[in-house]
Amino acid sequence: MTTKISPIKARRPRGFSDRSGAEIRANEAMIARIRRVYERYGFEPVETPLIEYSDALGKFLPDQDRPNEGVFSFQDEDGQEARSGPAATGKGEWLSLRYDLTAPLARYVAENYERLPKPYRSYRWGWVLRNEKPGPGRFRQFMQFDADTVGASSPAADAEMCMMAADTMEEIGIPRGQYVIKVNSRKVLDGVMDAIRVQDAHQRLVILRAIDKYDRLGIEGVRLLLGQGRKDESGDFTKGAGLDASQVDALEQMLSFRVEVETLADGSEKSRLIGKLARRFPDITSKAFDAALDELGRISRLVEAAGYDDRVVLDASVVRGLEYYTGPVFEADLTFEIKDDEGRPVRFGSVGGGGRYDGLIGRFMDEAIPATGFSLGVSRLQAALAALGTGDHGERAGPVVVLVMDRDRIGDYRAMVAALHRADVPAEVYLGEAGMRAQMKYADRRNAPLAIIQGEDEKRRGVVQIKDLALGKKLSAGVADNKEWREERPGQEEVAEADLVEAVNRLLGRGERRPP
Amino acid sequence: MTTKISPIKARRPRGFSDRSGAEIRANEAMIARIRRVYERYGFEPVETPLIEYSDALGKFLPDQDRPNEGVFSFQDEDGQEARSGPAATGKGEWLSLRYDLTAPLARYVAENYERLPKPYRSYRWGWVLRNEKPGPGRFRQFMQFDADTVGASSPAADAEMCMMAADTMEEIGIPRGQYVIKVNSRKVLDGVMDAIRVQDAHQRLVILRAIDKYDRLGIEGVRLLLGQGRKDESGDFTKGAGLDASQVDALEQMLSFRVEVETLADGSEKSRLIGKLARRFPDITSKAFDAALDELGRISRLVEAAGYDDRVVLDASVVRGLEYYTGPVFEADLTFEIKDDEGRPVRFGSVGGGGRYDGLIGRFMDEAIPATGFSLGVSRLQAALAALGTGDHGERAGPVVVLVMDRDRIGDYRAMVAALHRADVPAEVYLGEAGMRAQMKYADRRNAPLAIIQGEDEKRRGVVQIKDLALGKKLSAGVADNKEWREERPGQEEVAEADLVEAVNRLLGRGERRPP
Repeated sequence: MTTKISPIKARRPRGFSDRSGAEIRANEAMIARIRRVYERYGFEPVETPLIEYSDALGKFLPDQDRPNEGVFSFQDEDGQEARSGPAATGKGEWLSLRYDLTAPLARYVAENYERLPKPYRSYRWGWVLRNEKPGPGRFRQFMQFDADTVGASSPAADAEMCMMAADTMEEIGIPRGQYVIKVNSRKVLDGVMDAIRVQDAHQRLVILRAIDKYDRLGIEGVRLLLGQGRKDESGDFTKGAGLDASQVDALEQMLSFRVEVETLADGSEKSRLIGKLARRFPDITSKAFDAALDELGRISRLVEAAGYDDRVVLDASVVRGLEYYTGPVFEADLTFEIKDDEGRPVRFGSVGGGGRYDGLIGRFMDEAIPATGFSLGVSRLQAALAALGTGDHGERAGPVVVLVMDRDRIGDYRAMVAALHRADVPAEVYLGEAGMRAQMKYADRRNAPLAIIQGEDEKRRGVVQIKDLALGKKLSAGVADNKEWREERPGQEEVAEADLVEAVNRLLGRGERRPP
Repeated sequence: MTTKISPIKARRPRGFSDRSGAEIRANEAMIARIRRVYERYGFEPVETPLIEYSDALGKFLPDQDRPNEGVFSFQDEDGQEARSGPAATGKGEWLSLRYDLTAPLARYVAENYERLPKPYRSYRWGWVLRNEKPGPGRFRQFMQFDADTVGASSPAADAEMCMMAADTMEEIGIPRGQYVIKVNSRKVLDGVMDAIRVQDAHQRLVILRAIDKYDRLGIEGVRLLLGQGRKDESGDFTKGAGLDASQVDALEQMLSFRVEVETLADGSEKSRLIGKLARRFPDITSKAFDAALDELGRISRLVEAAGYDDRVVLDASVVRGLEYYTGPVFEADLTFEIKDDEGRPVRFGSVGGGGRYDGLIGRFMDEAIPATGFSLGVSRLQAALAALGTGDHGERAGPVVVLVMDRDRIGDYRAMVAALHRADVPAEVYLGEAGMRAQMKYADRRNAPLAIIQGEDEKRRGVVQIKDLALGKKLSAGVADNKEWREERPGQEEVAEADLVEAVNRLLGRGERRPP
């Protein structure tokens, strides 16, 4: 009934990708490891849908150069709510695809607050979508894995997030010394902004976003964005925060604490950020600054007491771009080097982050609800493991393939497959139309460990040929002579029909499996 | 920095739901079982993104009463393609959220055709989204699990789909006799429509959709939709196909084959649809009808040879609503009864379906590519298992909770948790601000098996109290006297600090676990 028209081009929108079996399995192996850590810490899975009311998600993303950038949104055609709600226009309300897993969690907690245990400790993973300009390594659909503790205002909850992130790095295969969990507080920046007399909310946001680009643009780029503005490589101009030179200097001074370490009496080095901040900015009398030093001090002591201070360190340059953080902020950074597109060595960098967002749930409620969380970029971590050469690569042997030598006997071939299935051996009959050579090529492309062959002659003698494709590949490397190869037929053996399953199990190195 | 405004209502759009830990785990257990079957049959996982170009997905959904219904769509703001493409309007192209997993697979196969093994056998599961009117049990985001064989035109591929679906039902816990896999061919309907001289493509589509509603509306409802039209309970009128009474009769006759069975000589009953169709419509000379009888006959013989004919049966009333099917169509039906909203017994009904779609991949290519697949509704299956009382309910014990008796000693409590973590025991320190009673209530709500208590007195004596909450609950049912209860303290024991991990492992019934 379909009308033939000129073919449509088969293509994906930019920034979206397909995943192969190997990628899916590698991803699952990583998810399972992260979950093992989070469950060990007492976190419970929970999941929210892909679509939410736009106003429930809010607009907290960085880099919004045009209106609505960052979020995929559309109007609901289910008019029900609009008709019964205050805006009885007949038009639907705005819906958005989730751009992170934190904003939907805030909605979930507020909606179910009474029945949830407090503190509420949960984790979730899934796709998030961003309507951003795609680019190399920059996707519009990517996977995040979040853990959150809601209803605990104590810095112990923040410290736990950081230590759990460190444990997670090691559980998925990133060795100690190759990662660092950095901690800071938004209140450090708030305090410095108080001190340099920046009060305007929008200006403060522009400063936050400028500093968040420090990793990518370096200090010169950040200085331009803190000052009059910056023209990027494409020629686009981004207006700056408009600070004067002395204000920019103060912020640069704050940022510079990232690389300094203090050498202790025993020769070891520790990042003593709190003391350094207090000494460097002795004239800051901001309440925010005092609060920052207090909460960072408490986190620092908990981390040290638990023996994580070689992995969880304070770093004043971390601010995180999401607008909703209110206190401590975290970043998981991989410190090993990879090659960039031009072959130059660069640090792998951030694979996730998080922080305290005491205002986000309160948007839905009459009271503020404290909350803190950590979000890992699953695809980034997968890329990191690939770069390190560790982790599960996801490759697996394919099914045993029963070749079709005689099309009329497909029922017999299917019976062999059914017998293998009962022994829990993955197996299939070749379902295409092609001949013997193409069938062998198919088995090879499926990464089949064995091919089963029963032609007219074998059928008459009540036997089957089993070709060990993996062994055949290995042996063929050592056989010089084509004639010898044909005579010896390495990796092929003949067994009685009745012994097929047993022989397959033996060749696959499988013991007795569960009976039919 | 956030400004306090009046609270936003925390709510989800209709037709979207959150999932609890128990639901997530039950779902995972089912997914794992389905995958086990599909891997055994030699299918390989592959995944496509949530968003595709609208033209790549096409519009094949049933029930499109208004334009664009069924699919969430929006214009791309990534103008790159539009600018370089033919429609250089500066506006982006239309994107859609996937409404099933078949249309994206067709795009994937066409895009990667050369490098894929042929036949290409794959499976995938994930969320699909439909912009439909939500209702009770009718969701706008739901999970499907699909398997497809691309590049095999043989009915053996269709027969395999049906037998694999039957195996899947049993693997996930639906006993034989409680389900049936129904098979039909679109060409049966095509043949009957040829015979009653319906040629108009739109009219044929209206007939298809009317018959697809047979399960829900019954024969009277379908007759109205085949004739002048039907007014539903809400008063909305759906225009009919405009057939005359004799045409409607012929279609009703075709449908009636669903319930008839043939009693064989040995007393057993078999659905001999093909013979019946041929006898009842002896004057149909349509090529489509002949092709239908041929392909159904071949599927039927394969199913019988494999011993699946008690579970995979032919049924002329199955047409499936998706427009893209071209030949055999399948439906998985659960035959046991549940209670409807008014307490009346109703058959559980369809939990999935599929069919052959030889034209879908060809939309992207210069040649037609044969393909067949089966799609299971995961949420429907989950509901079925719940109704049967089988399956994994997903409930799990929570973490061991270490109570905070002395806020200054949180470091000590964390050390206990760290020791339990090293022994792979899920455990956490209570992170809230509340007192002893609320902490015990928290442990209870977390379904914690044990609570660890160390107050000032225990600390001095170098011991901890371990409260077995599960045992305590069980014992409390048998203790009549409150005084006796307090004295005996059932389910509570005191151990030396150093023996904490060992005692916890013993109480949890865990043997030696992997060392730190």
